[in-house]
Amino acid sequence: MKIKKTHKLSGWELRFYSHDSRSTQTEMKFSVFLPQGVEKIDSAIIWLSGLTCSEENFMAKSGIGEILRDTSTMIICPDTSPRWLDLPWEHESYDFGSGAGFYVNATTDWYKDHYQMYDYVNQEIYNMLIEHFDISDEKISIMGHSMWWHGALILWLKNPDKYQSVSAFSPIVNPSSCPWWQKAFTGYLWEDKGTWKQYDACELINSWAQNKNPILIDQWTVDEFLKKELLTQNFVEACKAQNQDLELHMREWYDHSYYFISSFLKHHIEFHLKNI
Amino acid sequence: MKIKKTHKLSGWELRFYSHDSRSTQTEMKFSVFLPQGVEKIDSAIIWLSGLTCSEENFMAKSGIGEILRDTSTMIICPDTSPRWLDLPWEHESYDFGSGAGFYVNATTDWYKDHYQMYDYVNQEIYNMLIEHFDISDEKISIMGHSMWWHGALILWLKNPDKYQSVSAFSPIVNPSSCPWWQKAFTGYLWEDKGTWKQYDACELINSWAQNKNPILIDQWTVDEFLKKELLTQNFVEACKAQNQDLELHMREWYDHSYYFISSFLKHHIEFHLKNI
Repeated sequence: MKIKKTHKLSGWELRFYSHDSRSTQTEMKFSVFLPQGVEKIDSAIIWLSGLTCSEENFMAKSGIGEILRDTSTMIICPDTSPRWLDLPWEHESYDFGSGAGFYVNATTDWYKDHYQMYDYVNQEIYNMLIEHFDISDEKISIMGHSMWWHGALILWLKNPDKYQSVSAFSPIVNPSSCPWWQKAFTGYLWEDKGTWKQYDACELINSWAQNKNPILIDQWTVDEFLKKELLTQNFVEACKAQNQDLELHMREWYDHSYYFISSFLKHHIEFHLKNI
Repeated sequence: MKIKKTHKLSGWELRFYSHDSRSTQTEMKFSVFLPQGVEKIDSAIIWLSGLTCSEENFMAKSGIGEILRDTSTMIICPDTSPRWLDLPWEHESYDFGSGAGFYVNATTDWYKDHYQMYDYVNQEIYNMLIEHFDISDEKISIMGHSMWWHGALILWLKNPDKYQSVSAFSPIVNPSSCPWWQKAFTGYLWEDKGTWKQYDACELINSWAQNKNPILIDQWTVDEFLKKELLTQNFVEACKAQNQDLELHMREWYDHSYYFISSFLKHHIEFHLKNI
C-alpha cells in the first residue's frame, strides 16, 4: 500500500493511497481524511461516490474537513471502479464500466475477473479500516451518493453487524425497476434475475427483520433522476411495511450536485456520530 | 445581467451570473454566495482566485458555505480574465492570457481593449455589490489566492477607503522581482517600469502612511513557488518599515492547493467579519 499524495490541513491530514487489490486484480485507489492531534481515531465512515467520480471528488468538493474538525472520526473514500483496464464497453459511457462500478460482484465473462466492487468495499476497504487504521469493527458506518448509496444500503442490509448506520444523498433504491441499473445489471450480472434481487434494496428490505438504527436520506424533490431512476417512494413503502425507521428529507429546489451534498453533509455526519 | 445557474443550499443560495462588462468589452462571469433567511445581507467579501481558475473553483472547493452559515455576509467571485477572445498568445500558457488576467489594466496594443481587470474588479464588481446587492460601501472586504491576492492587495493599498480589510493565501507580493509577473507585466504593460511599480505591493507599501486594519496572510513554508515567485519576506520587511500590522502565518507542510485554502479559510472569514 503506497501513499501517493498527502495534503496536510488544519487539524487534519488528507492522504491518497494506491494498493494492489485482491478483489479487482488491479491497482485501486482510495483517499482518507485523518484527524490529527487526537489521542486515537475511534470511528470511521466509508463514503461511496456517485457515477463518474474518483476517490478525489468528495474530498475536494464536500467541505468535509470543516465538518469533521474536532471529532475523532476518519472518512475513507474508495474509487468507484477498477481503472486502467480495457474491457469491452468499459470506457464507452459514463454510466457503465470505469467510474460506474455500481457496487456489484460481476458475473459476466467480460467483467467477473475485475469488477468485484461489492467485495472490494465490504472486505478490503472494511478490513483496511480495522487492520491498517486500527478502527474497531463496532465503529464503522457507511454513506454515499446516487448509484453508490445503493451500494451503501446493500452493504448495510446484507451485513447488519458490520455497519452501525447508513445515510444517503439522492440514492437509487429500487434498481431492478431503474433503467440505469437494468443496463448495469445486464452488463455485470447478465439476465439472472435472482442475482439482481440480491442487489436491490427494496427487495432486500422486504425480507428485513432487523431492529437497526434509522436510515437517513436526503432527496431532491425536483431531481431530474427522481422519477425514472431513484424511485424513492418505493423504498419509503418498503420501510413502512417492515417498521424500519427512515428519516427522509425531501428537499425542494436542490439538485444532484456536490453543492447539494455539502449543504446537508453536516447533518449526515452528526447522524453517524450519534449512531456509530 | 443574467443568472446562468442557481444552486440552492441549506441556508444559502449560490448563483452564477454573466453580464456585459464595460471594462473588458466582453461578457464576464462571476458567482455569488448569498445567505437566505436573514433580514438583510449587510457585508460582502470579494474573492479573487489564482491562475487557471474560473468563477467556479472557489465555490466548489473551498467549503465556504459551511463557514459562512449563520452570518449575513455574501461573497462574490469574479472570473480571472476575459474569455472567448483570440488575442495573440492568449491561450498558449497557463500563466498569461485567459485564466491569468493578473489584475492589471493592460496598456499593450494587443490587450488594452479587453484586459482591464483592475477596473473590472475595482469598479464594476465593487459597484455591483452596492447597486445590485445593496451593500454599504463601508462593508466590503477583499481576499484572494496566489496571483490574485496581489490584485486584492493592490486594490486595498490604492483604495484605502473602499476596502475594510484584506487577506491572502500564498500571495505574490513583489511582482517586479518575480518571473511570473515579469512575463505578465511585459505582455500586459510592455516595458514601462513606472507602470509596473503601480502594481507592486512592496513598492506601494513603501509610500504607505495609512493607519489601516492589519493584513492577514497564510503562506506555505515549503511552497514550491515561495522562493522564486511569492517573495513573502520582501513584503514582511516593507510592512515593518511602514509600521503596517501584518498577521503572517507560515504553515509548515502545506501546499498551494484549495485544500490549503479550505484549511484556514474559517480564520480568514472571521478576520474579515471582525474588521468589516
